[in-house]
Amino acid sequence: MERTLIKNLHAKVGEAVSISGWVDVRRDQGKMVFFDFRDRSGKVQGVVLPNSEAMSTAKELRKEYVVKVFGIINKRPEKNIQSEVQNGNIELEISGIEILAQAEELPFDMSLDGFNLDLVNQLDHRALTLRHPRLRAIFKVQAVVIDSFREFMKSKDFFEFQAPSIVPAIAEGGAEVFEVNYFDKKAYLSQSPQLYKQIAMTAFERVFSVNKIFRAEPSATTRHLTEVVSLDAEMGFIESWTDVKDMIEETVRFILKNVAEQCKEEIALLKTTLPVMIEKTPTLSLTDAQNRIYEKTGRDSRGEKDLSSQDEVDICNIIKEETGSDFVFVYGFPTRAKPFYVYPNPENPEFNEGVDLLGRGREWLSGGRRINNYDQLLTHVKEWGMSPESIALFLEAFRYGVPPEGGFAFGAERITMQILNLENIREACMFPRDMNRIDTSLTKHNASN
Amino acid sequence: MERTLIKNLHAKVGEAVSISGWVDVRRDQGKMVFFDFRDRSGKVQGVVLPNSEAMSTAKELRKEYVVKVFGIINKRPEKNIQSEVQNGNIELEISGIEILAQAEELPFDMSLDGFNLDLVNQLDHRALTLRHPRLRAIFKVQAVVIDSFREFMKSKDFFEFQAPSIVPAIAEGGAEVFEVNYFDKKAYLSQSPQLYKQIAMTAFERVFSVNKIFRAEPSATTRHLTEVVSLDAEMGFIESWTDVKDMIEETVRFILKNVAEQCKEEIALLKTTLPVMIEKTPTLSLTDAQNRIYEKTGRDSRGEKDLSSQDEVDICNIIKEETGSDFVFVYGFPTRAKPFYVYPNPENPEFNEGVDLLGRGREWLSGGRRINNYDQLLTHVKEWGMSPESIALFLEAFRYGVPPEGGFAFGAERITMQILNLENIREACMFPRDMNRIDTSLTKHNASN
Repeated sequence: MERTLIKNLHAKVGEAVSISGWVDVRRDQGKMVFFDFRDRSGKVQGVVLPNSEAMSTAKELRKEYVVKVFGIINKRPEKNIQSEVQNGNIELEISGIEILAQAEELPFDMSLDGFNLDLVNQLDHRALTLRHPRLRAIFKVQAVVIDSFREFMKSKDFFEFQAPSIVPAIAEGGAEVFEVNYFDKKAYLSQSPQLYKQIAMTAFERVFSVNKIFRAEPSATTRHLTEVVSLDAEMGFIESWTDVKDMIEETVRFILKNVAEQCKEEIALLKTTLPVMIEKTPTLSLTDAQNRIYEKTGRDSRGEKDLSSQDEVDICNIIKEETGSDFVFVYGFPTRAKPFYVYPNPENPEFNEGVDLLGRGREWLSGGRRINNYDQLLTHVKEWGMSPESIALFLEAFRYGVPPEGGFAFGAERITMQILNLENIREACMFPRDMNRIDTSLTKHNASN
Repeated sequence: MERTLIKNLHAKVGEAVSISGWVDVRRDQGKMVFFDFRDRSGKVQGVVLPNSEAMSTAKELRKEYVVKVFGIINKRPEKNIQSEVQNGNIELEISGIEILAQAEELPFDMSLDGFNLDLVNQLDHRALTLRHPRLRAIFKVQAVVIDSFREFMKSKDFFEFQAPSIVPAIAEGGAEVFEVNYFDKKAYLSQSPQLYKQIAMTAFERVFSVNKIFRAEPSATTRHLTEVVSLDAEMGFIESWTDVKDMIEETVRFILKNVAEQCKEEIALLKTTLPVMIEKTPTLSLTDAQNRIYEKTGRDSRGEKDLSSQDEVDICNIIKEETGSDFVFVYGFPTRAKPFYVYPNPENPEFNEGVDLLGRGREWLSGGRRINNYDQLLTHVKEWGMSPESIALFLEAFRYGVPPEGGFAFGAERITMQILNLENIREACMFPRDMNRIDTSLTKHNASN
């Protein structure tokens, strides 16, 4: 008999069906045994009645056994209907059970509310804890975030390209890069597809990519991963950095709308609320933001080159109180504090045309206008102390006509964490890597090798 | 005035417009200057008439200059209409030109038919050659391949997850892996998301991923890259390995259909034809394939553990001649010649339930059923001489109930190459890496560092 997905059982009342899935819950009442079965589409209650031929197998089953179950779909009596639950008005009367795979006794409580492992243990047992509905909910939201990014980009004529992970030289930053033994030579893991997306933009005008980036930061905070999924966009023919800002705002708005529409159950399960994006996200220069913080809190960060963590919290609180917006754009950072390719404001070259989006007290993403003039770019490369030879491929693009352009980038894990108000970025990564862990603890790993 | 995309100009006859783009071609006829302009949406011809205010700027322009152009859209006189060309019935009468960026003189001919760089020079100048329409066409096809894979997977209820690139141990194969200096420890670049997709499958039942994999093969052939975009799928609750085979066939059919529909111009530009997939792709065991080759050609490869390159060519030719199909499935390889997780045929455990899809004389992709029973898996791990500790995370999943399952994987670059009949896989990778090149030649790179 062909398998019916559990979500489709409601249309099969009175019919004989076969389902396949896991034993989610088992309640042995002696003469009768009740089950919740789970497949990718949901859950349903099943019952083995006294004298059923399936009784001896039913007695054998334990949580996480994989089974094929045969039976008839019955309507539940009125008093047993649970209208708020999937399939709460039906029940599978079981006539046969085939065991497809057994399961050992679970090492900890995997029930919805009984699950209370700390993060270290969750990660040590990732292959099992991933089955928990709250964990699956997080990755469902992440999949929607990433897919929505791609969908929105395509709707705006952006072309998807594949950025490389192995790079020949360190274009940005310095020490925080992983070195790869590349045959008998040295190579590195990419910290950003920045230079490649700018090259691709010169051929396709608007490009995006979903690619891994790597940061060898020796930090074990709640916000650091060594391997991140970077969502990147770059667009030519902008009139101003505000075109980039507007594209960022539309992109984030689209992602939040999709998460709200497609992840209702997940949001409820995770007991969280989505951030509010008002019609026009407030936008402040760094200097204005610092002034506002000083006025409002008395704390003086004026003249600093960037916002501190506390500044991010404070400016978000101020804007939230005034406008209801959970988001605020901050632009106009000191030119020398940012990478060489960021475009300096022509009227005040000490400050650049980069922009950050903050939300709920944290940075969500960064973007801005880039330098598109070859001579200006080369001057910056030299002023920033870089070797033009090491980025010769990139520089060549700018010798042959590049329009005014800009772009932005954000991490899929960070934005998932922020959207869901998670406490640790590791919760938003299925297989997180940090300085102490690759799958399992590296101390353990080295001991066993 | 707001920018009009070139593809939308046909609806603006008689109107004043502004376009932005690159100078694709310039034909100076003395009193008049003709141009082809190019943006992401296409090309249009423009003309500067005698006495136009734009004449002095027009004389300045060269190929690849970036410009904003103002003018009026005119219908072309009947005798000048080129109906087979985009915008062949209109012309932009130019009233003003603003130069957004200059371009140096091109170092080689970038015209459609004049472009004849060898591959090494193409790659050395990737930032410029990427603008050539034939190269852009290849990556357009690749983007459609990747996007179609995701679209089809989603339509079949597969869940997208992100597989890691940095891994703690070498699960398959041996020496051909890149080592990463991971803080003060050793880590590796993933050769395959195999174990991670199997873990993710145990939670989501059907999963797919689009992720980088890395192979440190010291080969500089036309078929080797060190970094590849791997399209991976894994599905639970299969009845047999043929469910996997059927999913492979449907996936490839969907990709070919989308390429045919969405890449008509690109296929024509690349002067290629797509392979033929008949209603039911022929399927042979390895033994049968070897027998057929022997019968037909007299060449004896019976008893070999795998198909040689010549075998792949021969069996594809035989099947093509008999059935018209450019594709053939070959299954039933020797168990010990394949990775530990491949499912042995219960009736003949010397052979496994893995399957390859061949097309046009080459392997396109691999898949098959996997072992889902914990004890059998552990036995294989030991027989294959692997350390269970090094894949403890993976093995844990199988202790708690895993359904019969299988999956498949293929490289985006390889399938792009095969679909387009390209000669070298580097043509199907925007920024190819091999043992001698990361962006530029590694010899050159090492000399300049």
